[in-house]
Amino acid sequence: MARWLVLLAGGRGERFWPLSRMMHPKQFLTLVGNESMIRTTRDRVKTLVDDAHTWVVTGRDYVEKVRRNLPDIPESQILGEPVGRNTAPSIAWVAAHIAQRDKDGVMIVLPSDHLIQKPIHFRWLAGQALDAAEMMGGFYTFGVVPSHAETGYGYIERNGMAFGDPNILEVRRFVEKPPMEVAEDMVKSGRFLWNSGMFVFRVQEFLEAVAQHLPEIARAVDTLVQQPDRLDTVFAEIPQVSIDHGIMEKVPQVFVLPADIGWDDVGTFAALARHLPRNDEQSAAHGHAIFVDSKNVTAISDGPVVSFVGVQDLYVVATRDAVLILSPERSQDVRQVVQALKEGRHDHLL
Amino acid sequence: MARWLVLLAGGRGERFWPLSRMMHPKQFLTLVGNESMIRTTRDRVKTLVDDAHTWVVTGRDYVEKVRRNLPDIPESQILGEPVGRNTAPSIAWVAAHIAQRDKDGVMIVLPSDHLIQKPIHFRWLAGQALDAAEMMGGFYTFGVVPSHAETGYGYIERNGMAFGDPNILEVRRFVEKPPMEVAEDMVKSGRFLWNSGMFVFRVQEFLEAVAQHLPEIARAVDTLVQQPDRLDTVFAEIPQVSIDHGIMEKVPQVFVLPADIGWDDVGTFAALARHLPRNDEQSAAHGHAIFVDSKNVTAISDGPVVSFVGVQDLYVVATRDAVLILSPERSQDVRQVVQALKEGRHDHLL
Repeated sequence: MARWLVLLAGGRGERFWPLSRMMHPKQFLTLVGNESMIRTTRDRVKTLVDDAHTWVVTGRDYVEKVRRNLPDIPESQILGEPVGRNTAPSIAWVAAHIAQRDKDGVMIVLPSDHLIQKPIHFRWLAGQALDAAEMMGGFYTFGVVPSHAETGYGYIERNGMAFGDPNILEVRRFVEKPPMEVAEDMVKSGRFLWNSGMFVFRVQEFLEAVAQHLPEIARAVDTLVQQPDRLDTVFAEIPQVSIDHGIMEKVPQVFVLPADIGWDDVGTFAALARHLPRNDEQSAAHGHAIFVDSKNVTAISDGPVVSFVGVQDLYVVATRDAVLILSPERSQDVRQVVQALKEGRHDHLL
Repeated sequence: MARWLVLLAGGRGERFWPLSRMMHPKQFLTLVGNESMIRTTRDRVKTLVDDAHTWVVTGRDYVEKVRRNLPDIPESQILGEPVGRNTAPSIAWVAAHIAQRDKDGVMIVLPSDHLIQKPIHFRWLAGQALDAAEMMGGFYTFGVVPSHAETGYGYIERNGMAFGDPNILEVRRFVEKPPMEVAEDMVKSGRFLWNSGMFVFRVQEFLEAVAQHLPEIARAVDTLVQQPDRLDTVFAEIPQVSIDHGIMEKVPQVFVLPADIGWDDVGTFAALARHLPRNDEQSAAHGHAIFVDSKNVTAISDGPVVSFVGVQDLYVVATRDAVLILSPERSQDVRQVVQALKEGRHDHLL
């Protein structure tokens, strides 16, 4: 009965173009700190779960990058998907592998490209959730205490205490990304937490839930484990389902640990910009920048020096072959540029 | 008694950083059309003066670039200055060389990085000026009919007709770059023309004026022609003087040919931006750009694709190692960035 770590590393990071690329998505970037996001994510829980018990599920094209970022994880525990099918199939595939060796294990599932600014507190909470899953069973989530009304995240409505533990609350319901008015009301009520996409549960209990609620996926991952050579054909037919929608919203025993952990999914340049130190004129840089009479501008560069003269309220992302100039309000709309490049057959820039 | 062409190609083009670089200034860039500016300048008058009678004076570091741009000009006629000393010494140095072979020649002096959109009309005017200098002597300038009140240029106040020729007017006075109010008044009066920095005169007459008004420079260029090995020491002591200030404003016989020739010195990104075709939202690109909901933005790139999302009123200049984001009103202030890079010892970016 061991503890297992599963890192989800399949993201394509189009919202971070041109910093992220098709072959170099966000989880492999060093956005904050000195290590790639996936390396930082793994190291954050290394005192909880060792490398021998760590699995990564990623896109097939990224397997080599994962190996280079996490060289101590056994190669057989890095699973490469031929196509992305959202989180439920990814996690079920890993769980089926783990179940072959440790039916009684518990697993913690973490996205590999999120920021957590209070890692010690997070590690403690993660330990709590693993303890609870081991002792009591059930499905555990981490609910981030909202700092503002945010329309880009899903929410979790909490209920009362579970097991008499003030750190573990019952979940009343999951709410998908809300409109702004709804988000404001939810945050005001104090009953809602952000769904951080991190989960803890027993391997066997999870696989039983998959068999019950997502039987097609259960059959597919059984086939994958028994006949790994059928990877391409099996994956092609798996439906796209998120673990939130496919499992968490359906199982009865769902709990949330309120988490004041400095979490951010860094899903947009706006999110990244929030984490950069600013000068007196509210400008900030990741990389080399020069500011002349410029206010509230953010430069994110993986090479070129970025210079501003007499401008304000801009994000600029610069690489050697692509530059993006973005209004801070339009941080979500980078995909329109990516789309234009696809349509213009400039795939080498993606 | 031949006609000689002198191209001034010493400019360092700091206002075009990062497109221009210390080792690749504006005269060697292809900003408009398909050829470098110096090549276009030379070709514009090739039916007036052949290569054997063409001289170029440039920075020593640029001699090789001039050769590559103008391979048919005799190498001995490309003069490299160890340091820039403004236009009067450059032109006097070339004139002293020409005088050794052709005391009775006339010369036309052209900056090598200006745009002229009506080249046929300009060629005709240049021929007029050369004819007049050959027949009558005197110092000839081309006065551009102003299209707007511009504070970035010097002005020439015209007087009445000279030699009974309606195309050649006497010059009343030269006016240095004026404040905006003065510029507006001058343009309104209809008596002022922009000083384009292009000149025609007899070689001997020019050298006599140098001897009279700039005797120190006259002695220096005599020494340079007699003892070319003393180039470095002689140049180091030459004073910085412009031909406008040192000669044109002092000699008695100065004439101006009003020139409606589509001239622009393309001295700033604003000037370059004026010459790019714009889309329906007033945006323009030199190089590959993508515009999403962006108005009145200009991209100038020598490689990277530049993408805009939800922004307006910007110039962006992109190269592989440096990106500049500039307010259209601050086109003159690029030098502040160049200065910051110098101070930060980032000379490799200059």
